[in-house]
Amino acid sequence: MNGSGNQINTSKCGNTLCSSYVTPKEIEEIRLNLDDDWKVLRSIYDLLIDEKAFCCNNTEWNEKIVQFVQPADLKNLIDFKIEENQTKTIEDIKKLCREVIKYSVKTSHGRFHNQLFGQMDPYGLAGSWITEAVNTSAYTFEVAPVFSLMETEIIRKVCELCGYGQGDGIFSPGGSISNMYAIVLARYKRFPNIKSTGMFGLPPLVLFTSEESHYSFKKAANWLGFGVDNCIIVKTNDKGQMLVEDLEKQILLVKSQGKVPLFVNATAGTTVLGAFDDFEKVADVCEKYDLWMHIDACLGGSSLLSYQYRCLLKGIERSNSFSWNPHKSLGAPLQCALFMTRETELLPQCNSLAVHYLFQQDKYYDVSYDTGNKSVQCGRKIDAFKFWLMLKARGYGGFGRLLDHALDMSKLFAKKLQQREGFRLVLDEYQYTNICFWYIPKKMRNCKETEEWKLKLYEIAPKVKELMILQGTLMVGYSPLQYRNIGNFFRMVFTCFPVMDEKELDFILNEIERLGEECVL
Amino acid sequence: MNGSGNQINTSKCGNTLCSSYVTPKEIEEIRLNLDDDWKVLRSIYDLLIDEKAFCCNNTEWNEKIVQFVQPADLKNLIDFKIEENQTKTIEDIKKLCREVIKYSVKTSHGRFHNQLFGQMDPYGLAGSWITEAVNTSAYTFEVAPVFSLMETEIIRKVCELCGYGQGDGIFSPGGSISNMYAIVLARYKRFPNIKSTGMFGLPPLVLFTSEESHYSFKKAANWLGFGVDNCIIVKTNDKGQMLVEDLEKQILLVKSQGKVPLFVNATAGTTVLGAFDDFEKVADVCEKYDLWMHIDACLGGSSLLSYQYRCLLKGIERSNSFSWNPHKSLGAPLQCALFMTRETELLPQCNSLAVHYLFQQDKYYDVSYDTGNKSVQCGRKIDAFKFWLMLKARGYGGFGRLLDHALDMSKLFAKKLQQREGFRLVLDEYQYTNICFWYIPKKMRNCKETEEWKLKLYEIAPKVKELMILQGTLMVGYSPLQYRNIGNFFRMVFTCFPVMDEKELDFILNEIERLGEECVL
Repeated sequence: MNGSGNQINTSKCGNTLCSSYVTPKEIEEIRLNLDDDWKVLRSIYDLLIDEKAFCCNNTEWNEKIVQFVQPADLKNLIDFKIEENQTKTIEDIKKLCREVIKYSVKTSHGRFHNQLFGQMDPYGLAGSWITEAVNTSAYTFEVAPVFSLMETEIIRKVCELCGYGQGDGIFSPGGSISNMYAIVLARYKRFPNIKSTGMFGLPPLVLFTSEESHYSFKKAANWLGFGVDNCIIVKTNDKGQMLVEDLEKQILLVKSQGKVPLFVNATAGTTVLGAFDDFEKVADVCEKYDLWMHIDACLGGSSLLSYQYRCLLKGIERSNSFSWNPHKSLGAPLQCALFMTRETELLPQCNSLAVHYLFQQDKYYDVSYDTGNKSVQCGRKIDAFKFWLMLKARGYGGFGRLLDHALDMSKLFAKKLQQREGFRLVLDEYQYTNICFWYIPKKMRNCKETEEWKLKLYEIAPKVKELMILQGTLMVGYSPLQYRNIGNFFRMVFTCFPVMDEKELDFILNEIERLGEECVL
Repeated sequence: MNGSGNQINTSKCGNTLCSSYVTPKEIEEIRLNLDDDWKVLRSIYDLLIDEKAFCCNNTEWNEKIVQFVQPADLKNLIDFKIEENQTKTIEDIKKLCREVIKYSVKTSHGRFHNQLFGQMDPYGLAGSWITEAVNTSAYTFEVAPVFSLMETEIIRKVCELCGYGQGDGIFSPGGSISNMYAIVLARYKRFPNIKSTGMFGLPPLVLFTSEESHYSFKKAANWLGFGVDNCIIVKTNDKGQMLVEDLEKQILLVKSQGKVPLFVNATAGTTVLGAFDDFEKVADVCEKYDLWMHIDACLGGSSLLSYQYRCLLKGIERSNSFSWNPHKSLGAPLQCALFMTRETELLPQCNSLAVHYLFQQDKYYDVSYDTGNKSVQCGRKIDAFKFWLMLKARGYGGFGRLLDHALDMSKLFAKKLQQREGFRLVLDEYQYTNICFWYIPKKMRNCKETEEWKLKLYEIAPKVKELMILQGTLMVGYSPLQYRNIGNFFRMVFTCFPVMDEKELDFILNEIERLGEECVL
């Protein structure tokens, strides 16, 4: 809290009126250069193709996903240093871009299955390039006329599909922030005065979420002033679904402690196991105790579009809100995250302030098209267009079929795992596209499965992962499940893109077996 | 809170193992089409050029900035409807994209001065296109090796430039969220237990910010559980700078009420007047009362790079944190927002949770390069690369000179306004690049300036703005200053791009005069 840092260098500070420090000649030169600078954009597509940023076609899947270099070495390969006077030509810049692409992970490579997102939909990328080029903010119709109407249309359609009928929503910078929207709305609905006077005078307000749910609820509890301890963790069953009896028990316990149960998060597609909670049962409990019911459907919200698996979301229409990230399963480029609520007026009521420099009421158009009042942000990135373009290109039914196929593939993958020696599923059955499993190297098979054996097994996934990265052939994530005292296993995730087939499933199993044997040599 | 919505349609729900609902033949077809779909990217650049998305060269500045259409009419011009089975060919998609660009506001047009951002730096756009194409998330070095090191380098360099020396930082989805980071850190440093148990047991914690400051502090006070009333508004002087005597008075008042002063926000470049608070004086008060000093430098942080105007930030090295949006003055595409703090360990301490599926400690590289533990988000868009590429291309000194020029131009513009009949400055003197002024139509000159006259004057800016939009010749924002009981005036903003010259300043004044006379006819 003292001036221990150095002062900023103000030696050239003048603040003189029209000092013309930068001469007209220099300005003319900068302008001429700028005309050239814009041409760099013409070469970006070719650069990406040259450097194989999109190994989208399965004939290209033998290309490396990543050329891995340790952090310290990477610093020597790319000149990261930012300096005052070092300028670059277009050719230098292209060379730099080439290196950046070369050492980046190709997430649109068909063998990248490391996160909940996979390959992109090219129409999504087209939309995002145009979004970037048009470079505007989502707060007003004035500066985002087309994009405002797109956001509205997407929200309207999602309200229809999920059974809300009437409702509202907003694109947010990601699932964690969508989940914060939900908590803040729940709090505002029950205690509208918190907007003015804060949470200080109140008994502790309590959030509930399952042990399988995402960590963003604890992060939100910290940020929003509830405290992590007031985010109560509810137990799950074998499949990773919230135990609704335990939820009710915890609610009663919290009440008996003089605290106020406020908010329940149920999950549609948990991060590790891909579990869907039983929303009808959770809704019953929420209605009984008058709690806000939110669904973290960041992963599983896409099943709204699936024909065969939509039933996983049964009861979603009874929720007060949900989060859904089309940048996960559907192939929308990051970030593309929706927060949806059944409460039609609550978003602007809770979040708006009268802001006169931006949301003037004396405009030349119907200002109800300005969406900024619903947002906690001021400037807000346009995330609607890329998703809208994807939906236009394929119809939402097209994504339904791709998702059905991804789910079919995940089930076929699980079946193969069950039947193949050396592989073992973590769960007997999976609800969604995450398939969790171990590889048991030959040397470890037919042994007594002692604690020591298990600890050795849990080391396999990180070792195989290291080899995957070093060889660049495949990327599949791994995770432990600490609340069950289970160590590392692989988590394979199926998404709309890449579009998989049976041969590719065999490749993945063969490759893990190959690397698994290599790492125990 | 009941099932008033409709149930989702689950008529086709099967959940049968490997039902092969989507046939191998259909999959093959989708894959073949996908190969073609990727080619759409090849045409995006040409489409943007054709539709004049970048009127970057001043020979093109007579092109329309926007082809304005009322919301209801726009719905008839573009088919916004999302449907289940309507699919499109690449040609259809290109046509749609063309329409989207056509009816969007061209914010990179050299006559767009409507927001705090202006034209983009083409290298920024090149960086953002590659970022979108590589499509990854900032949480781990594993999936963002190059980008993680870039973020680290930018943060290191900014710490050096601002005089923090050692420090930390993170890219966030915008200034509002950066400002929330600051408040949450301040709260955590003083009351670390809030992370566990929340704010319930505490006396009210109070934030201070000036009447000229951004509304995001009130929004943050709502979200973070303080309540808007605990965000105390400090008075300003004629220039729009926080009155530090009033700050001290308010702090003492709050203390006398049994509340706890926690956090002071000073502003570097206020939204409307572009005012810079006196950071040395604010720092003295913060040190005296042991308060966290944050600077909202979302707009004015860029002056760190300016040679002549860096002195506006004197004392920034004494702050605990600041927010800076390179997407404003510098021409980085939206979103590009930095949160910086002098506290080296606080970001991860405050925001981290042990998350085992993502931040495994048994990785094959030095996990200190994983930045996700510092963030309130999980997935986080890569916002560093575009800015890094700009800085590489021009050196940060290049932006310093462009900013010096923008500031010179703003001062010349103010001088012209002072000398020209029919124009009147709102302030006598401006510290930064925002110049606020009225246009007084001929009919209204040399009249007694009654309350009625003033109300008439305040109607001019909205009317001129409407004509600007309808004719598409110029976009300059307007605003009132309600806390001073002042009605609408124009706010002209100078940024690095477009690179302006004196002729262009005259165009703006002539155009406002032309439209101003037209609207009183």
